[in-house]
Amino acid sequence: MAYDLVIANGTVATAADVFEADIGISDGRVVQIGGDMGGATRVIDATGRYVLPGGIDSHVHIAQPSGPGIVMADDFDSATRSAAFGGNTTVMPFCLQERGQSLATAFRDYREKATGSHVDFGFHMIVTDPTPQVLGQELPALIEEGQRSVKVFMTYEAMRMDDAGILATMDVARRHGAKVMVHCENEDVIAFLAARAAEAGDVAPRAHATTRPVAAEREATHRALTLAEVVDVPIVIVHVSNGAAIDEIARARSRGIDITAETCPQYLVLEADDLARDNWEGAKFVCSPPPRDTTEQKNCWRGLETGLFDLFSSDHCPFRYEDDQGKRNPAGLRSFRHIPNGIPGVETRLPILFSEGVMKGRIDLTRFVALTSTNHARAYDMYPRKGTIAVGADADITIWDPQVRKSIRHADLHDAADYSPYEGFEVQGWPETVILRGKPVVEDGKLTAPGAGREVPRAAT
Amino acid sequence: MAYDLVIANGTVATAADVFEADIGISDGRVVQIGGDMGGATRVIDATGRYVLPGGIDSHVHIAQPSGPGIVMADDFDSATRSAAFGGNTTVMPFCLQERGQSLATAFRDYREKATGSHVDFGFHMIVTDPTPQVLGQELPALIEEGQRSVKVFMTYEAMRMDDAGILATMDVARRHGAKVMVHCENEDVIAFLAARAAEAGDVAPRAHATTRPVAAEREATHRALTLAEVVDVPIVIVHVSNGAAIDEIARARSRGIDITAETCPQYLVLEADDLARDNWEGAKFVCSPPPRDTTEQKNCWRGLETGLFDLFSSDHCPFRYEDDQGKRNPAGLRSFRHIPNGIPGVETRLPILFSEGVMKGRIDLTRFVALTSTNHARAYDMYPRKGTIAVGADADITIWDPQVRKSIRHADLHDAADYSPYEGFEVQGWPETVILRGKPVVEDGKLTAPGAGREVPRAAT
Amino acid sequence: MAYDLVIANGTVATAADVFEADIGISDGRVVQIGGDMGGATRVIDATGRYVLPGGIDSHVHIAQPSGPGIVMADDFDSATRSAAFGGNTTVMPFCLQERGQSLATAFRDYREKATGSHVDFGFHMIVTDPTPQVLGQELPALIEEGQRSVKVFMTYEAMRMDDAGILATMDVARRHGAKVMVHCENEDVIAFLAARAAEAGDVAPRAHATTRPVAAEREATHRALTLAEVVDVPIVIVHVSNGAAIDEIARARSRGIDITAETCPQYLVLEADDLARDNWEGAKFVCSPPPRDTTEQKNCWRGLETGLFDLFSSDHCPFRYEDDQGKRNPAGLRSFRHIPNGIPGVETRLPILFSEGVMKGRIDLTRFVALTSTNHARAYDMYPRKGTIAVGADADITIWDPQVRKSIRHADLHDAADYSPYEGFEVQGWPETVILRGKPVVEDGKLTAPGAGREVPRAAT
Amino acid sequence: MAYDLVIANGTVATAADVFEADIGISDGRVVQIGGDMGGATRVIDATGRYVLPGGIDSHVHIAQPSGPGIVMADDFDSATRSAAFGGNTTVMPFCLQERGQSLATAFRDYREKATGSHVDFGFHMIVTDPTPQVLGQELPALIEEGQRSVKVFMTYEAMRMDDAGILATMDVARRHGAKVMVHCENEDVIAFLAARAAEAGDVAPRAHATTRPVAAEREATHRALTLAEVVDVPIVIVHVSNGAAIDEIARARSRGIDITAETCPQYLVLEADDLARDNWEGAKFVCSPPPRDTTEQKNCWRGLETGLFDLFSSDHCPFRYEDDQGKRNPAGLRSFRHIPNGIPGVETRLPILFSEGVMKGRIDLTRFVALTSTNHARAYDMYPRKGTIAVGADADITIWDPQVRKSIRHADLHDAADYSPYEGFEVQGWPETVILRGKPVVEDGKLTAPGAGREVPRAAT
Repeated sequence: MAYDLVIANGTVATAADVFEADIGISDGRVVQIGGDMGGATRVIDATGRYVLPGGIDSHVHIAQPSGPGIVMADDFDSATRSAAFGGNTTVMPFCLQERGQSLATAFRDYREKATGSHVDFGFHMIVTDPTPQVLGQELPALIEEGQRSVKVFMTYEAMRMDDAGILATMDVARRHGAKVMVHCENEDVIAFLAARAAEAGDVAPRAHATTRPVAAEREATHRALTLAEVVDVPIVIVHVSNGAAIDEIARARSRGIDITAETCPQYLVLEADDLARDNWEGAKFVCSPPPRDTTEQKNCWRGLETGLFDLFSSDHCPFRYEDDQGKRNPAGLRSFRHIPNGIPGVETRLPILFSEGVMKGRIDLTRFVALTSTNHARAYDMYPRKGTIAVGADADITIWDPQVRKSIRHADLHDAADYSPYEGFEVQGWPETVILRGKPVVEDGKLTAPGAGREVPRAAT
Repeated sequence: MAYDLVIANGTVATAADVFEADIGISDGRVVQIGGDMGGATRVIDATGRYVLPGGIDSHVHIAQPSGPGIVMADDFDSATRSAAFGGNTTVMPFCLQERGQSLATAFRDYREKATGSHVDFGFHMIVTDPTPQVLGQELPALIEEGQRSVKVFMTYEAMRMDDAGILATMDVARRHGAKVMVHCENEDVIAFLAARAAEAGDVAPRAHATTRPVAAEREATHRALTLAEVVDVPIVIVHVSNGAAIDEIARARSRGIDITAETCPQYLVLEADDLARDNWEGAKFVCSPPPRDTTEQKNCWRGLETGLFDLFSSDHCPFRYEDDQGKRNPAGLRSFRHIPNGIPGVETRLPILFSEGVMKGRIDLTRFVALTSTNHARAYDMYPRKGTIAVGADADITIWDPQVRKSIRHADLHDAADYSPYEGFEVQGWPETVILRGKPVVEDGKLTAPGAGREVPRAAT
Repeated sequence: MAYDLVIANGTVATAADVFEADIGISDGRVVQIGGDMGGATRVIDATGRYVLPGGIDSHVHIAQPSGPGIVMADDFDSATRSAAFGGNTTVMPFCLQERGQSLATAFRDYREKATGSHVDFGFHMIVTDPTPQVLGQELPALIEEGQRSVKVFMTYEAMRMDDAGILATMDVARRHGAKVMVHCENEDVIAFLAARAAEAGDVAPRAHATTRPVAAEREATHRALTLAEVVDVPIVIVHVSNGAAIDEIARARSRGIDITAETCPQYLVLEADDLARDNWEGAKFVCSPPPRDTTEQKNCWRGLETGLFDLFSSDHCPFRYEDDQGKRNPAGLRSFRHIPNGIPGVETRLPILFSEGVMKGRIDLTRFVALTSTNHARAYDMYPRKGTIAVGADADITIWDPQVRKSIRHADLHDAADYSPYEGFEVQGWPETVILRGKPVVEDGKLTAPGAGREVPRAAT
Repeated sequence: MAYDLVIANGTVATAADVFEADIGISDGRVVQIGGDMGGATRVIDATGRYVLPGGIDSHVHIAQPSGPGIVMADDFDSATRSAAFGGNTTVMPFCLQERGQSLATAFRDYREKATGSHVDFGFHMIVTDPTPQVLGQELPALIEEGQRSVKVFMTYEAMRMDDAGILATMDVARRHGAKVMVHCENEDVIAFLAARAAEAGDVAPRAHATTRPVAAEREATHRALTLAEVVDVPIVIVHVSNGAAIDEIARARSRGIDITAETCPQYLVLEADDLARDNWEGAKFVCSPPPRDTTEQKNCWRGLETGLFDLFSSDHCPFRYEDDQGKRNPAGLRSFRHIPNGIPGVETRLPILFSEGVMKGRIDLTRFVALTSTNHARAYDMYPRKGTIAVGADADITIWDPQVRKSIRHADLHDAADYSPYEGFEVQGWPETVILRGKPVVEDGKLTAPGAGREVPRAAT
């Protein structure tokens, strides 16, 4: 029997193991690990390379509207291209129900926009308008169909839900078998502080961080966890930025709540002080929650090291900097409150954690795989098809060169933003070859199988 | 010089000291402690008695409306009569702004209703409708005038404010020098659970407790404390019922927040299981937060013993039991959701703590005085006029007989409800004589100076 | 190429993955997973079975002396036989340095005693007498040679070390690259309470639990963690029995200490009340720390579910019940203080967790594998040779029948004690076939390869 | 009736109250507060002054030996002179049992040495050698006689007791009605770090702080609290220096342990960095626990503000700097390990807290009185004779001038050391007149009643 592809001579890692073995792939799946591979249509030699499950980035925003006249920099073409070059084989963008809109209709639209993606994908449903139609019919139907993750916001005036809405949404999720992801920041606190900052003429980007203090995140985190406790539904606390929020998660776990916890690169290597860079350049770092300080970076690292965090995602949310639709839109230049919220990062997530985490000895390869791939697949019901290198799994594999050293430059990246918040950041290790369901999609610096992405079927595990 | 009144031969206590001394009173004030009193118009012999500062009950509801067609059992006449017989010389009722109403007008009304009270009084302002008129003009004027405490509710559909309203109210309080009292229970959680109970046909009084779980109080407590932290305003957490809420207070204090914490008799000697008594009698114990269990009683006792709690109040909120306007109103008999919320207690607060606390050795006399009088005067800017027995202070004094044993019977009480939730509770010690600004108001079981109560001027300490 | 053995058609699990695949084994190692196995010398059909890494029990006591005239029930023959039948392929017993003894000599003796074992093994060094000879020469040499785990006791008069001794031992461990395992109970507290119990004539087995309260374990746990923090050495907290000790571990992890945490079956399914069984039968449950109560059982389960615990071990420490050298020795019958401390459990550890954990849905198969095998191999430097089913690893494999139901009966077990504390406990699932380095050692209820065990070489990972 | 002394026109404070009143004193006691004083032998006009209970410093070391050939700078003459000038009317030194010594004999000696003291005094018994003689006979007799406080050390090689000794001592204290004071630092940790520092040639005074880290204090604090929990005896945690130890106290209080907590000036206004001053001058700040950093200063302030701390003491422990018996003894100049441990402070304690606390608005006068006087009297059974200004109490009164500003200079102080660690520290407010049992002992900058001090009888409250 001749396999379609054999990856030979590499060091393979799963979330549990690291071993030397060839990988035999057929019909898009991993068929054999180790042993005699027989003939193969193609052999990739991975000597001196790490052969890891393809990255799953379960927190990316693509082609969402973002306030009046503001659109994200990336559509699915550019976003998934960037994802692929960053070592990812699956991304999980959001389907945003805007208020007044049908969720089912919204989903149809996003699904259509995703056609032609370059990596596999699955959607989370953002509910902003919990009408009887949405909660009574649309959401249950979507969950049953496999859209088993729902997101709610406690911040952003246009998207936030009050506790009643969140409870109702959580209750639907519980009854139909979905997880609920929560963006935890107290909008009223932020609006209060933002108004005060505005009164004081404090309008520069740095005030974005000042008006979104740790207390606002800690409060909302505790509240969201309590709502999940009351409803008894699994919850995902996304993009945790600090030790106080981590403590809330630890306290809640010891109360028995089923929690998945996520952090992101911006909370490891950026700081609130970056928002104070000259010439409105701080706008490049405006995202929510904001980056904090070195103490909180350390707290987040500790959370990764000790297993408090399950997921490491990018929260990719790209806007252009030099753009009337982006960070420097006319209103944004007058006040931080109109700077679009979010930063690009789908392509840099894995190299940053690989370099700062694995290469610097903070975490080992198995934890890297768990945090960047396996746990995402498990949390969002794509496992065991996705998230691992095991017999029967999709052959989504990224081959890493652990020796290459690079300085991150936006010029080398593939998203449609015009800057990277990590410009100039030095990393060691980079994804060299990315294989999606057995076919190389990135190889020799080129996108070799454009449009190969498919939606991932998701079922209860 | 001949004093108007001398209290001779008693054991006197303040929040710090216990000593044997005569007290000389003139023109309504304490003038001399110890020494040769000279002649006196009248001498009360307090041999074998405790001579304590008159009780201040800073949390009583009087003559408030309470939902459609429901009125409280007590007006100021009956409530302050009951207060006096219970050893109190000052009460602090609420002025409730109903939605749509002017706070200033409401206050004029309550003040008028208070005319003829039998003990001194001062008001807290309940804001339910934070209009520009109220927050921009009325509340600042009222605070400046001396109404230096504002209350907000996080529960009760008709009274709750959202976080934005609370922040705005807190900000006014901070700028004008008032404290903010918060009733901490998450209304959305309660409504969610109540709807679920209703669906399940779980409508008996016991469900009142089930649908207001500790988690709902813990969540709201943490949130209220965070809002106060953000605004930087002193906060009062009223009627704390359990250890988890206590922990939130302790955590917040160690973050540096200025917190006054209160608990009540119902959290020491009643239980959720009392709400399960037969024949709808559980309705007699319906109050919010609900009584919990023996573990939480112990936690509340520990909070009193260790100084975590500053205030011990009654949260007197009286409804009749056998009454179409009360606990057994027709709707209330169909579902706990329509049972008026609250229990009477202004007359039993002091004897219960005296008996269970002082007589049983859990707390000493000085802490009793602090918890029931001095700390209330300090918290609400009535000190040093009120709250102590010191030269220059109002001669508000309660003489206790520590030997008398009683079984609490509503028939012996003076409120206008028709039952007591403490019926049959055995106590040792009872207030025998109550002196208001130098004049006995309760003596030999009679109200001896009806209508002697005055509003207490309040100024920043 | 024909493999020595192929395990076909089973459901395979690692600490990360569950998949259907055949396993090809050659020269004692896993060579191929999935794919075409070609011919095979032997094929075991595992249809309907779980194919798991062989259990590693890293906490067993074998053939240790245990006080004057008291010997353990098991020698290496019976203990490793029992281990094999319980699904284990590796055990980690202790080499006990008795006071006054050379550690090097002691190790030579234990190694010799281990000859002929039926499963693989590795030793932990117990230091009780930290002489210059031991700390300056013997221990460093032993660590360098591969004995990379050292144990110290904070309890037991004959074995305890004071903090100075522990610090000195930890320092040697840190410098030479070993972990330090600590038995955390405060001996002085226990001795104090035991003397008080003795005075009061409280000598029955139940007093063993009363005199070893949670506070004694919590204190010693916090202290041991602090010592490790000061020295900066990795620490293993063995046999954690309760929530307070768990909290200490969580607090210490958030301070950045490198901790491995372990619990055991006795803390999940036994209780202190078992020590009160009639007719001195409580002696059967005397072990340290003692089993606690249902609340603490729940806390331990939560620790397993949330990943707080890394290891699940037996703390096998067998004594006979009806024996002058065991639980009913003449002195033991007079007072609990002379009942030998410890219970048998190497054969029942895996079935209890499999049944109560996996079958009852508390944990999944991957966590079972991590807790019972992979994490032990990682913690004690046997990985990746041991602890997983991966290409290149030793083919230590246990095939489980998840359907079989049994009542645990000592008559069916293989240790040399005469009772099981789990007598009558109902389980679902049992290890059917146990394969050590590619050879079945237990099959069809028989020990098929007696004496096949070897010492496992250990190197820094 | 003519009083011996009247203090007129001052602002009087107790631990509860602040009021304007004259104080009438007769036969050494407060007889009358307020009212018409009639004639008086002497009237002190206290216009514009604070009239406070005399300071009680319950933690001072006087005339103790301190290692081979090292004696403290102060005998009772100089120490109590300094205390008096610092506003104190009572001090509580220690009676140190040296190992091998009889405690009864030691007490006889200290009592004799105290003859001629200038302020009142009472002793704490330090037990270092818990022989049957001491625990079985001497200590019980001493407690019964009124020496109702026992101190044990967990550090200092010559004084430390192990846990068994502490438990035994606590048990005697519990049975006979004494409190146990504990110096909480883990000696083995300190010795380990000190040896490591010595090896590294790190011998300068700064290493004194490095080798006594917060972890060593936190550990010992948790352990001491656990021992008290096991024995069920009231415990005093002396000289708490940091937030982690504060957290241990808070946790233990919520477990129900009866704890008195103390901090000292050095933890509010000194820092570990002071030990790094040039030319061995850092030796002036060597005390244990060492001062920490600004974060821990803030934590200690918070503990004072929130009532976590009951006592504010000096831990006066004076050595000369330029002295062969003091800080610069020959061995001390070679290594920090031989610098005598302790700093003078009995005269500066009150002014520092008055200035930094009351004048800067962190605490009010009533808390100042509680922390510096009343709570000491209560904790050590001198109340109500000592610690307050109330009818019947000893007329121990300090009259403060709140306006005077001073720079602390050792030249102005009265102890027998030759420096102050607070040299140059600016304060506002100073004790002007000190009255002991109705007689001025310090007035117009002079000691006006030398040798007036007496031992205070102590009885259970």
